Amino acid sequence: MTEVGPPLAPGETLGVLGGGQLGRMIAIAAAKLGVDVCVFDPDPDAPAARVSASSVAADFEDASALSSFAARCKVVTCEFENVPAAVLAALAAAGARVAPGPASFATAQDRLVEKAFFRDLGAATAPFHPVRDRQEARRAAAALRGPGILKTAREGYDGKGQIRVRTADEVETAFDALGGAPCVLEERVDFVREFSVILARWEDGRTAVYDLAENRHEGGVLVESRAPAAVSLPAADEARRIALAAAEALGHVGVMAVEFFESADGRAIVNEMAPRVHNSGHWTVEACRCGQFEMHVRACCAWPPGDPTSHGRVIMRNLLGDPTNDWRRLIADKDISLTLYGKRHGGDRRKMGHYVTTW
Amino acid sequence: MTEVGPPLAPGETLGVLGGGQLGRMIAIAAAKLGVDVCVFDPDPDAPAARVSASSVAADFEDASALSSFAARCKVVTCEFENVPAAVLAALAAAGARVAPGPASFATAQDRLVEKAFFRDLGAATAPFHPVRDRQEARRAAAALRGPGILKTAREGYDGKGQIRVRTADEVETAFDALGGAPCVLEERVDFVREFSVILARWEDGRTAVYDLAENRHEGGVLVESRAPAAVSLPAADEARRIALAAAEALGHVGVMAVEFFESADGRAIVNEMAPRVHNSGHWTVEACRCGQFEMHVRACCAWPPGDPTSHGRVIMRNLLGDPTNDWRRLIADKDISLTLYGKRHGGDRRKMGHYVTTW
Repeated sequence: MTEVGPPLAPGETLGVLGGGQLGRMIAIAAAKLGVDVCVFDPDPDAPAARVSASSVAADFEDASALSSFAARCKVVTCEFENVPAAVLAALAAAGARVAPGPASFATAQDRLVEKAFFRDLGAATAPFHPVRDRQEARRAAAALRGPGILKTAREGYDGKGQIRVRTADEVETAFDALGGAPCVLEERVDFVREFSVILARWEDGRTAVYDLAENRHEGGVLVESRAPAAVSLPAADEARRIALAAAEALGHVGVMAVEFFESADGRAIVNEMAPRVHNSGHWTVEACRCGQFEMHVRACCAWPPGDPTSHGRVIMRNLLGDPTNDWRRLIADKDISLTLYGKRHGGDRRKMGHYVTTW
Repeated sequence: MTEVGPPLAPGETLGVLGGGQLGRMIAIAAAKLGVDVCVFDPDPDAPAARVSASSVAADFEDASALSSFAARCKVVTCEFENVPAAVLAALAAAGARVAPGPASFATAQDRLVEKAFFRDLGAATAPFHPVRDRQEARRAAAALRGPGILKTAREGYDGKGQIRVRTADEVETAFDALGGAPCVLEERVDFVREFSVILARWEDGRTAVYDLAENRHEGGVLVESRAPAAVSLPAADEARRIALAAAEALGHVGVMAVEFFESADGRAIVNEMAPRVHNSGHWTVEACRCGQFEMHVRACCAWPPGDPTSHGRVIMRNLLGDPTNDWRRLIADKDISLTLYGKRHGGDRRKMGHYVTTW
């Protein structure tokens, strides 16, 4: 269980580990509520640092920097799930209240732990095989029916650390290509759509759940979310049940996302979870009374839940790579709301911004 | 005419003179659009400085600080109208593009200039008498029919620099109490409501106009705005015509507000203008596709206009003084959107935040 304690007061400082776009949007939401933000990121020019009251520019291994960061923050939260356990321990040792707590990170950081966790909740997952060594690679290859995806158990995101495999031979080659790191071989799921549940949970067990988002990925990267998702009612109910049960079991504090497949026969199959604000929830800022970033700040600060109700239908699309040309066209389109992340460099399929249309 | 030039690109810096709540909300809007903000304010801990990429903490008389501020900003805007002409000149000398331009400030800074300006546009104003010396004070007192308000021509805001007068004797006493500074004696207007026009203008003449806001003041301080205002159609049309004509005549760039009285016989009578984002436009953030702060950033950056259309009815109420108790109640009310300004100290009727209800 996370120890969040008494509510943060306006003017006190919320710490954010990680200075990318998610940290930036958390900081913007905190700014609206009069909360000061301190960002911890190795890059002093990180996007979130540029909209925050203060920042600590240091490596995540720098124990003394973590300690002084913890000392100036009433509560610390994170924009990414791959926070090393040592960092969480250092923050806790320095007396920081961290939201969410270690269980959420530990579960989300390892695909094998994550899958076991969701199975224990009675959730359906894609058939999978642990591939932690050569022997397991061969065993998994033999068990594989049809194409699959070999994913590193840890550290993967946005399609990184994943290789599609079609034959038994390819499993071993992929395992080598991924450096022999512990992996999981997931069998392909025949799905009709991908969707996610974005919810927030409070330390006292209160929750706020957004409309389901229907997601489209390309090359492992989210390109579009629509809400509400056209998911069948039984699958939607099952997905909400699983996501809420997961948040409860983890004692999660803050926003979290659970991504699902809807199978052809209308079942909700867990893909993965993220113990944080999520790209497939960006539309909530424009479409809901209380967007996911404000909701997250409220949960971390032990403030009451906001209203997650959406006031219409919405599409969110990501801007990937170099948006230099796109933004001129998009800023001129009155029907969209444009968000740019302030990143200095574009690069291949990097997330640079997104835009939202509501109707 | 303001020289705004080519559009600012994402990642470039918008300068904001003044670090209060208006500067803070401009900075938050700029952050969403990927624009870096540099705040100039004597207080390094100013509310806007705490949500901006950088800040210059210096007095407005510090020419070298102004010069280095100008050098790092592609465009400079202001959160307040009482920017000394010397500051604008120093920024211009340092090569800064300032939006809005000097005409907007010069007109709004002096009530006598302002009233003459609106009269020249064919607008109705309250009957007024210049009171620049004792002789004019006596003459104004003699001409006064019924109660009036003596206001300093310059430097007044939120009811400061204003004294209500009922008799001829009181005019001279009030003139002394205001330090003998140049004043204007305004006769009382019998009005049925107060309202304002919030609009933005671009250098090329494009404009965006919001729904009229109906305003309620207490002690000279705005306490509530509702939109759309229940103004009679002829008065609404006249007010929009005057506000647009004023923006055009000033070559204004950015958001501006013109406050009006609606008389009992349905006329729009100009009260005053502000060449900036305005308290009576805060509801646009929640109720419109493009709120006044983003609209202002777009105009200053020479980006295309956003959509000022409101998607419903809205009330905004200010939080004045010490909101310590209020915020706990307000943050728990799911039907409102709360904004707190991050001010360190409350104090008597100081604007600390506001909240918005839409339906």
